[in-house]
Amino acid sequence: MSWLETSIMGRKGVAKGKAGDTHKITIADQGIFHYVYGPYADPVLQVEPGAVVTVETHDAFEGKITKETDTPSEILNFPYLNPQTGPIHVKGAEKGDALAVRILSITPRGEQPVGTTCLIPEFGGLVGTSNTAMLNAPLAERVKKINVDTDGVYWSDKVTLPYEPFIGTIGTSPEIEAISSLQPDYYGGNMDLPDVGPGAIIYLPVNKAGGLLYLGDCHAIQGDGELCGVALEIPSTVELQIDLIKGHGNSWPQLETEEMMMFIGSARPLEDASRIAYRELVRWLAAETGQSETDAYMLLTMCGKVRLGNMVDPKYSVGASIAKRYVK
Amino acid sequence: MSWLETSIMGRKGVAKGKAGDTHKITIADQGIFHYVYGPYADPVLQVEPGAVVTVETHDAFEGKITKETDTPSEILNFPYLNPQTGPIHVKGAEKGDALAVRILSITPRGEQPVGTTCLIPEFGGLVGTSNTAMLNAPLAERVKKINVDTDGVYWSDKVTLPYEPFIGTIGTSPEIEAISSLQPDYYGGNMDLPDVGPGAIIYLPVNKAGGLLYLGDCHAIQGDGELCGVALEIPSTVELQIDLIKGHGNSWPQLETEEMMMFIGSARPLEDASRIAYRELVRWLAAETGQSETDAYMLLTMCGKVRLGNMVDPKYSVGASIAKRYVK
Amino acid sequence: MSWLETSIMGRKGVAKGKAGDTHKITIADQGIFHYVYGPYADPVLQVEPGAVVTVETHDAFEGKITKETDTPSEILNFPYLNPQTGPIHVKGAEKGDALAVRILSITPRGEQPVGTTCLIPEFGGLVGTSNTAMLNAPLAERVKKINVDTDGVYWSDKVTLPYEPFIGTIGTSPEIEAISSLQPDYYGGNMDLPDVGPGAIIYLPVNKAGGLLYLGDCHAIQGDGELCGVALEIPSTVELQIDLIKGHGNSWPQLETEEMMMFIGSARPLEDASRIAYRELVRWLAAETGQSETDAYMLLTMCGKVRLGNMVDPKYSVGASIAKRYVK
Amino acid sequence: MSWLETSIMGRKGVAKGKAGDTHKITIADQGIFHYVYGPYADPVLQVEPGAVVTVETHDAFEGKITKETDTPSEILNFPYLNPQTGPIHVKGAEKGDALAVRILSITPRGEQPVGTTCLIPEFGGLVGTSNTAMLNAPLAERVKKINVDTDGVYWSDKVTLPYEPFIGTIGTSPEIEAISSLQPDYYGGNMDLPDVGPGAIIYLPVNKAGGLLYLGDCHAIQGDGELCGVALEIPSTVELQIDLIKGHGNSWPQLETEEMMMFIGSARPLEDASRIAYRELVRWLAAETGQSETDAYMLLTMCGKVRLGNMVDPKYSVGASIAKRYVK
Repeated sequence: MSWLETSIMGRKGVAKGKAGDTHKITIADQGIFHYVYGPYADPVLQVEPGAVVTVETHDAFEGKITKETDTPSEILNFPYLNPQTGPIHVKGAEKGDALAVRILSITPRGEQPVGTTCLIPEFGGLVGTSNTAMLNAPLAERVKKINVDTDGVYWSDKVTLPYEPFIGTIGTSPEIEAISSLQPDYYGGNMDLPDVGPGAIIYLPVNKAGGLLYLGDCHAIQGDGELCGVALEIPSTVELQIDLIKGHGNSWPQLETEEMMMFIGSARPLEDASRIAYRELVRWLAAETGQSETDAYMLLTMCGKVRLGNMVDPKYSVGASIAKRYVK
Repeated sequence: MSWLETSIMGRKGVAKGKAGDTHKITIADQGIFHYVYGPYADPVLQVEPGAVVTVETHDAFEGKITKETDTPSEILNFPYLNPQTGPIHVKGAEKGDALAVRILSITPRGEQPVGTTCLIPEFGGLVGTSNTAMLNAPLAERVKKINVDTDGVYWSDKVTLPYEPFIGTIGTSPEIEAISSLQPDYYGGNMDLPDVGPGAIIYLPVNKAGGLLYLGDCHAIQGDGELCGVALEIPSTVELQIDLIKGHGNSWPQLETEEMMMFIGSARPLEDASRIAYRELVRWLAAETGQSETDAYMLLTMCGKVRLGNMVDPKYSVGASIAKRYVK
Repeated sequence: MSWLETSIMGRKGVAKGKAGDTHKITIADQGIFHYVYGPYADPVLQVEPGAVVTVETHDAFEGKITKETDTPSEILNFPYLNPQTGPIHVKGAEKGDALAVRILSITPRGEQPVGTTCLIPEFGGLVGTSNTAMLNAPLAERVKKINVDTDGVYWSDKVTLPYEPFIGTIGTSPEIEAISSLQPDYYGGNMDLPDVGPGAIIYLPVNKAGGLLYLGDCHAIQGDGELCGVALEIPSTVELQIDLIKGHGNSWPQLETEEMMMFIGSARPLEDASRIAYRELVRWLAAETGQSETDAYMLLTMCGKVRLGNMVDPKYSVGASIAKRYVK
Repeated sequence: MSWLETSIMGRKGVAKGKAGDTHKITIADQGIFHYVYGPYADPVLQVEPGAVVTVETHDAFEGKITKETDTPSEILNFPYLNPQTGPIHVKGAEKGDALAVRILSITPRGEQPVGTTCLIPEFGGLVGTSNTAMLNAPLAERVKKINVDTDGVYWSDKVTLPYEPFIGTIGTSPEIEAISSLQPDYYGGNMDLPDVGPGAIIYLPVNKAGGLLYLGDCHAIQGDGELCGVALEIPSTVELQIDLIKGHGNSWPQLETEEMMMFIGSARPLEDASRIAYRELVRWLAAETGQSETDAYMLLTMCGKVRLGNMVDPKYSVGASIAKRYVK
């Protein structure tokens, strides 16, 4: 765990990246789930920096799609989608700070088949949608229920996919807006980026006192782009360690692992999401190494990496990163 | 004014398009202005369908830019931008209905020069922005204060532009979201579409009981696209007649004049805004005339009209319309 | 017609906007039609600046769709689509000049029903396409044949649309590229912009000696965006007056009428087409009036006009214009 | 090398993936380089399927940028950019076939510093461009010359990047178009996708008899997106094995390695490039495994991978792939 000591959380966290008190939020504790990221809900929990919190999350469908004969459009009730646990108030967090959230573990929760994927009308990467409005008939709705455990995702008799869990939706509250949990943006939200998994630390801008952390929408595995609109959705138990970086001042989510540093942009069209992520990375790299912005720009033209999160949500999400070994 | 009798408002309004009680909301009455479109604010006024309401609006800068030597980035305090009057609660309005808002007049308010336009860093149609993130240096900030009266806009000794006022931002509340008044969307908001002016009726979807009408951001004149990010911004007095269409069920704002019927879409990229607007129009035209959707699609390929509202806001706005004389 | 004397063609044309020799290119004269804009074809005609040329054009389907029971996908043979008459070599034209093409008249040609519109699979503004690739089933193919004369377009017993003809595809050759006549770009091409009609002068950049003017694809009428992918396509006889502006140096097509000056941009996404057109207009306006670029930018935020040509071709086309009365 | 036997080239190639005659094209052999992908140039070489060809390529600047004090905008002469070696005519290739090009090796060529990267005005991912037209001043031009050998890329005293070479631009001729070598499209071209390197086989659609293979623009290393507009550009010696797949019928470039199968889409905006690539992959996966298209779509929402090639060229390029171990 020595890389943690050199991480931003380890070096700059109020708790210096050390684990503090432990807390738990069960489904019952949460009671009422949230469908917007905003400052108008009461915190379900208040914690000190360093807190280790175990959080139970619903799947994105709130567990209402239970069998392959279900019809999503009859069950899902917009805008009451993608239920979020939280918000968690972090003491001392003020506008301009960042919450550091280290993801310790994600475990599937509930009875098999615990995983759900489906086709929802006018939603997905290869179909007309409410925005990319088409006259073509929508694809037929479909549900697939899939067994998942921490050893694998059992797609078929022939194909087992790895269990590569991550948090699809996590973020802080905007200052005065309350935005659908279907959307990703500068505060995080529904980024659907597979890098937001165990071992990573995500730094989320604080826009409102307490930060007000929400999360939900865990995925057992997801391809780049979340092609059909949803991933393999699972209810889960997530273990987080939460720290606070005073005055961190990042405008967009930042993600750190042992190997790399990433920034995450969300926008439409997709090139704008990439531009946001890369501009944040250029500026960070220049500041971190003392290079000029144009030197950083030219270095990234040689070694920058891009991960496509989603190309299906109200904004698309992209992570741009650099291997730490080139940050000198 | 006989066309009003044949308008949707005249035929289907609860008040049959007839004027009812009169009301007024002054700047002082409003007191606290709003920077989000949402259901979390208390109504400033409750009215019956048919009400005629006189509303005072701030300019988009809340009157804080007073002279040409001002520096917008020092004065403007994101997210407290584009202050809105309202919300107005319309009795009987329920989810699935539409508010019909007929714009009777828009008059500049305050001391000359009453109009303001300006260049704000990283905002506008021909510059890098927070989304279309660039490394180029921003343009220098500038403010222009311009005399305006109902006879004209006095750009220079040589050039007087016409006074063509409209409401830049008007809409209803989302059901559970509270979204920045800088953004246009399915409920209206910051569409910046010059057709939303005197003589027009706009039909806004009701997502929440009472509709919760907000408005602000009047413009003395604006080019298509609102090119530099703002128009000629004025404080104003707006006179509206508000009716209620039960079960109207439009998903996006609809606008009617004596001559034409329009739908307004807002999205990025700009083709998606156009697709939304045109798909709504295709479906309306098919339903109205009994033609098939593909007949309507082929008729509009010959006579549809597009008006670009803005290409600078968080979503871009487009109105697609057809002349009523072709709707048979 | 005094405005012609003050037009760019009148003031700067080699022939001073005066009509010179007359020429004719019939379908038989042309013989072999072209499906690319490029420098690899031999000129069908050489003319002096001032030449008045009568040109017969095929419709975009080369006249192969003759009845409503035809199936476009069986008849049309990609890439042999949108046949072009030309190229016309203009003597003295060199890279950096512009051809000035004044459109004198456009007349339908052939037997009734002379107009054709249709739905082609995976082509159009409200359907998935080869670029906006979808899994949805395409719309059913359809053909409509419509009577057209110079008095009107006879859509149905109830609806007659006006005859508002224009040239859908017109341009010069690129220097070394040969690009499909389905595409619009910096040299003109398939812009599908209704302003390119009788009374207008279009200034097309010369990239290759002789300019090499191609044209075709006339439309009897078209809505903004050419929504279903094609307009009302007609074979036609076009009368043009061609002049040459030495050293004009425009990067993109420029269009002038008695009332306004326009620049035409073509790109995807649609906002980029608008940006191109508006940036050219800003720069022209600043140069023409002695204002700074930011003054021009602020004036256009108040009075710029946008016309959507097409939102269906390989690049989308937009014209941005200003009324000449504000150019002082 | 056993995977080659099971590759498409091994199973379906006219030469069954076996190496045949050897050929060489030096810079001197080529003589005149090409700046368009088209059918109007004479082949520099004719080969039988199975041919192993050693090709010398210029760097994208034709070797004209030789020192860090050079000014690219003074040296580079649009449209004479990105010189291509070729075309190579493959005997027996007909429209509807595919060329299979296995990349055996790529070696830097010439004197150190052999690598060039630079900032070119109005070109790059984080600046205004000729399409994303801005009024901001361009970044200052810069050139960096960098030592490269097959052991590494020597960015600075502190940072050595790996040598990860690939072919930036490779493709076949369109049927009748001749398109700038700066552009990627359905026939390949300037895709700038790092997967097109040693060990991979790329299948390129044949649009014209002989296929007419062009290539150039090798990169010593490149980050995802080719952020500043160019990668680390090198002159190189490329060794290829060329086979022919009769009737392969792919619409877009397909790439195979031991581990995965990829399709490459190029379009703007970036989501359309992703849609193209993923739709090709969905259809291939369904056909290959006997699953339905919607099953393939749902499997890829769990395990599809996306590689961003470029976000700077006239069209953006994306590869979408699946690991072969999941293709059952």
